[in-house]
Amino acid sequence: MSSRLFQFAGGDAGAWRVVRTEVVAGEPLPEVKRLDVISGPKATSESTPAWCLRGMLSNVRYVVRDERTKLAAIQPELGRREASRAAFIPMSKSAAWWDLTQDERRAVFEEQSRHIGLSLRYLPAVARGLYHCRDMSESEPFDFLAWFEFAAAHEPAFNEMLVELRASEEWRYVTREIDIRVVRD
Amino acid sequence: MSSRLFQFAGGDAGAWRVVRTEVVAGEPLPEVKRLDVISGPKATSESTPAWCLRGMLSNVRYVVRDERTKLAAIQPELGRREASRAAFIPMSKSAAWWDLTQDERRAVFEEQSRHIGLSLRYLPAVARGLYHCRDMSESEPFDFLAWFEFAAAHEPAFNEMLVELRASEEWRYVTREIDIRVVRD
Repeated sequence: MSSRLFQFAGGDAGAWRVVRTEVVAGEPLPEVKRLDVISGPKATSESTPAWCLRGMLSNVRYVVRDERTKLAAIQPELGRREASRAAFIPMSKSAAWWDLTQDERRAVFEEQSRHIGLSLRYLPAVARGLYHCRDMSESEPFDFLAWFEFAAAHEPAFNEMLVELRASEEWRYVTREIDIRVVRD
Repeated sequence: MSSRLFQFAGGDAGAWRVVRTEVVAGEPLPEVKRLDVISGPKATSESTPAWCLRGMLSNVRYVVRDERTKLAAIQPELGRREASRAAFIPMSKSAAWWDLTQDERRAVFEEQSRHIGLSLRYLPAVARGLYHCRDMSESEPFDFLAWFEFAAAHEPAFNEMLVELRASEEWRYVTREIDIRVVRD
């Protein structure tokens, strides 16, 4: 059975070479040369990574059945051979976000921000994994770890998607966001 | 700032004396004499508890604004002097539950099972804490830890609430549930 736990270790080792690090909001992370993406609880190949962030695959929080059907029909799997580029984007949202009720969070997420509707336009070019960390402990540095894989030719479209999402109402609740671009050697 | 992490250690120590343990569904837990409820990451007062379960206070998953307003108006705080009885109910739900979309889980939870509507009738007699464990690691023995405090006079009403909830559509997804009743000495 595949693991729900994923770890992302930044340092001098790992299959992905870091080509750009942008601090979009909040505190930076130490810059690193490589990123090791690890499925499950095993240790990174590097003995002393600069940082190691962890998150869990979990149940969907906002997607409704109709949206899930649309997504399932066109969203690609991670690990495609042609997807040699990726973005690792750890994020946190504010206390105000977490204090909203379910209907309020959903309304900001989709009815106001079109998070799903907008993302659908970039499928199947972009594959995504979302790893939840907020409830793993009280001292997790991020709430989520987002991971996107795409071919080099699709990076401009991916950037356009981020511009749209970052201009949305939902992003007013984002307190920390770091955009780390990597290339698979 | 108060802790989001809570631990429930079963053994021979702690402020709560166990008076009854009922395995409602799934695998039992070793029976214990006392329960130690610990706020935060500090160790239990007992060096070798039979078990120590942990969970996190988190954002509400199904409650909408209107319901939250009603709940907030009448739900009591934990720790009331007269609430000398408590129930500690660790639970898990099936893979089928976790694979439902948000709208489907909400529909089972409230529109079909009246989880909130039914619970409201037992307020302010019963105070509740809900601690989430499913996303803390891949090997948590339960998905949630529910904790209820009430006066001795209200235990029959509390039992009636459980009978109603356990007969609901939502409980068809419950795969493990242990009902441990305790008294504060």
